[in-house]
Amino acid sequence: MSQSFIMSIDAMGGDNAPDIVIDGLEYYLKTEGAEHDVQFLIHGNQELLAELLAKAPMTSARSTVQHTELEIDMDMKPSHALRRGKGSSMWNTVEAVKAKTASVAVSAGNTGALMAISKLQLRTKTGVQRPALAAVWPQKDGMCVVLDMGANVECDAAQLTEFAVMGEAYYRALFHKDRPSVGLLNVGTEELKGNAVIKAAHERLSNSELGINYIGYVEGNDISFGDVDVVVTDGFTGNIALKTAEGTAKLVRKFLRESLQASPWSKFTTFLNVAGFRKLQQRLDPRRANGAVFLGLKGVVIKSHGGTDAIGFANAVGIGVELAESDFLSELERTLNALHDEDDNIGFIV
Amino acid sequence: MSQSFIMSIDAMGGDNAPDIVIDGLEYYLKTEGAEHDVQFLIHGNQELLAELLAKAPMTSARSTVQHTELEIDMDMKPSHALRRGKGSSMWNTVEAVKAKTASVAVSAGNTGALMAISKLQLRTKTGVQRPALAAVWPQKDGMCVVLDMGANVECDAAQLTEFAVMGEAYYRALFHKDRPSVGLLNVGTEELKGNAVIKAAHERLSNSELGINYIGYVEGNDISFGDVDVVVTDGFTGNIALKTAEGTAKLVRKFLRESLQASPWSKFTTFLNVAGFRKLQQRLDPRRANGAVFLGLKGVVIKSHGGTDAIGFANAVGIGVELAESDFLSELERTLNALHDEDDNIGFIV
Repeated sequence: MSQSFIMSIDAMGGDNAPDIVIDGLEYYLKTEGAEHDVQFLIHGNQELLAELLAKAPMTSARSTVQHTELEIDMDMKPSHALRRGKGSSMWNTVEAVKAKTASVAVSAGNTGALMAISKLQLRTKTGVQRPALAAVWPQKDGMCVVLDMGANVECDAAQLTEFAVMGEAYYRALFHKDRPSVGLLNVGTEELKGNAVIKAAHERLSNSELGINYIGYVEGNDISFGDVDVVVTDGFTGNIALKTAEGTAKLVRKFLRESLQASPWSKFTTFLNVAGFRKLQQRLDPRRANGAVFLGLKGVVIKSHGGTDAIGFANAVGIGVELAESDFLSELERTLNALHDEDDNIGFIV
Repeated sequence: MSQSFIMSIDAMGGDNAPDIVIDGLEYYLKTEGAEHDVQFLIHGNQELLAELLAKAPMTSARSTVQHTELEIDMDMKPSHALRRGKGSSMWNTVEAVKAKTASVAVSAGNTGALMAISKLQLRTKTGVQRPALAAVWPQKDGMCVVLDMGANVECDAAQLTEFAVMGEAYYRALFHKDRPSVGLLNVGTEELKGNAVIKAAHERLSNSELGINYIGYVEGNDISFGDVDVVVTDGFTGNIALKTAEGTAKLVRKFLRESLQASPWSKFTTFLNVAGFRKLQQRLDPRRANGAVFLGLKGVVIKSHGGTDAIGFANAVGIGVELAESDFLSELERTLNALHDEDDNIGFIV
C-alpha cells in the first residue's frame, strides 16, 4: 500500500452529478484504486449522497461527506461564481486543499468557475500570472501532455516558457519518465517560422540551462503521431487543436461504423471479430484521456470533463492519485524558481 | 462536353515529379476527366516528359510540352525562388495564367515559392494584402473548406472577413451549393470568447448585409463533425488544426490496423470483410482532400501536396477543373468589391 492521503471531491459538478461521481469513485476503487491508500472527502447534498453511497460500499468505507446545498451551475459566469460561490460544493472542495485537509481536489464542474475559485483560494505560485490547463492526449506510443488547453487565450513568451517547465514536471509526475521531451507547437519546424512570441519562447528555451529536454518546434501532427512528450502552446491554439482532434477521431469512428454495417455480410464478419473491435474501442475511448490539471497553483486541482461518465471520472481521480503520491508540487516549485532565477540572470523581458 | 480550356501544369514540382504528375493526369482523364474538355500545357524537361507521355496516351493526346531545364527545389527559400526562378517550370506554369494562355495553374512544388511567384506574377485582387491558402477537409456529411492554411501567420480582422468572403465564393464554385454556411473558428461559441481580432471580425460579419450565411463562432470539433461549410481562421491556427487532424486520423488508422491484426482469428475475419474495409479505406483516403487554392490572386493557382501520388495529384487537377469551368474568379471579384464598399460605408478600420 502506498502513502495515505485525502482527496477532496466535488460531488455536485458535471452534467450527470452526483451519480457519475459516486459511481466513478466506486469504479476507481474496484479497478486500480485498490492499491492506493486514498480517503475521500465528498462535498455535496448529504441526502442525495447517502442514497448513492448505500449502493457503493467500497467508496462508502473510505468516505466522509461534508454537506452543502449550494452548487455552482454549469453555465454560471466565473465572476458570479466568485461572488456567490462561497459554501458551494466546488468552493468547499478547493477549500479543503487550501486548508491542507486534502492533498488534491477533483471536480467535473464549470471550468471557468473552477479556475476562478481555485486561483482565489490557492493562489498562483510566485511569478506565475495565470494557471494553465494541461490535458493528456493519446499518442502513437503512449500519451502526451498538451498545454495550455484554453485558460490563457493570449500568451506572452514568459508564459510559454513557464508552460514548458510546468508541463515537463507534470509529465514526470504522471508518467514517471526522467527526461520527457518538450516541444513548442508551431506551423513548421524551421527556425524562421512562427510569430514573434513563439520565436522569443523558442530562443529562451533553446538557451536555457535548466536541463529540460527541449526539442524545438513541433507541428500539429506530432500531438498524435510525433515523438514529443509535452506540447506547449497558447490556450487559443491548444483548445482548437484538441477539439479538432476530438472531432476527427469521432469522424473516423463514424466512417468505421458505417463502412462495416453497409451489408449483412459486413455486419456478420464484424460480429465474428468482436474481440478485435473491443480492443479498438478501448484504445479509442476518449474517457482514457479525461482529467486535466490546473498548473501553476499552490495546490493540485483536477478538472474532469463535465459530460463524462463514471469511467471517465475514475480516470480523472487516477490522475489526482498519481499527483498526490508524487513530489509533483515541490518539483514544480523547484523548476519554476530555477526558471525565474535564470530569467533574472539573463534579463529575459517580454 | 463542357467548355474548353487550358490547364497549366508544373511537371517538375513535388517529391516524386515528374512521374506522379503525368500519371496523375492520365488517372484523372481515365476517371472523371473524360467529361471535361481540358487541354494541358505541361512545363518541364522535354526529354523526361516524352518518355512518360509515351506511356500515357490519353494525356499525350491532350498535351503540349513547354520545355525548360530549370526547376525550383522543394526547400528553396521564397526570396531565392523570386530572384532565380525565372524560366523554371513553376514560373512558366504561373506565367501561362498571367498571359491568359491557361485558365488555371497546378503545381505540387514548394509552397512558399509558389505563393511568392504567383503573387508577383498574378498580383492580388484590389484590397487584398496577401492571398490565403484554402483547403478542403472531410466532414461528416461531405467536405468543408478551411482557410487560411498557413499563408498568413498573423491576421487582422479585415483579413479574416476577406477570408470569409473568399472562402464562401470558393465553396460555391467547388460544391455548387447556393448559400454555404460560414463560421469563425474560436475557443467557444459564446459572444465573450476569443481575442480582440476575432471579436472584431465576428462583429463585422454579423452586421454585414452581403448576404453571406454567417453562422457565428464554431469550434475545433466542427471542422470534422459540425454543420459548417466554410471555417475561417488565421494561418497559424488553420495550419495547426489541419495538421492535428491529419495526425489524429493517422493514429486512429494505426490503432485500427493493430487491433484487427492482434490475432489470427481477427486477421481472418478482417480478410473476410475486405469489401467493408475497402469502403472505409476510400472514405479515409487523405488523397481525396488533396489540392489547396490560393485565394485573392487575379488568377487561379492550385497547390497539390508535395508528397502526394498520382491519385492525389489527380484530385488537385479535379479542383482546378471545377474552378476553371465556373465563374469563380468573377464571383470572387464581385463579393470582394461588395465587402470593401461596405467596409468604406461603415468605416471599418482595424
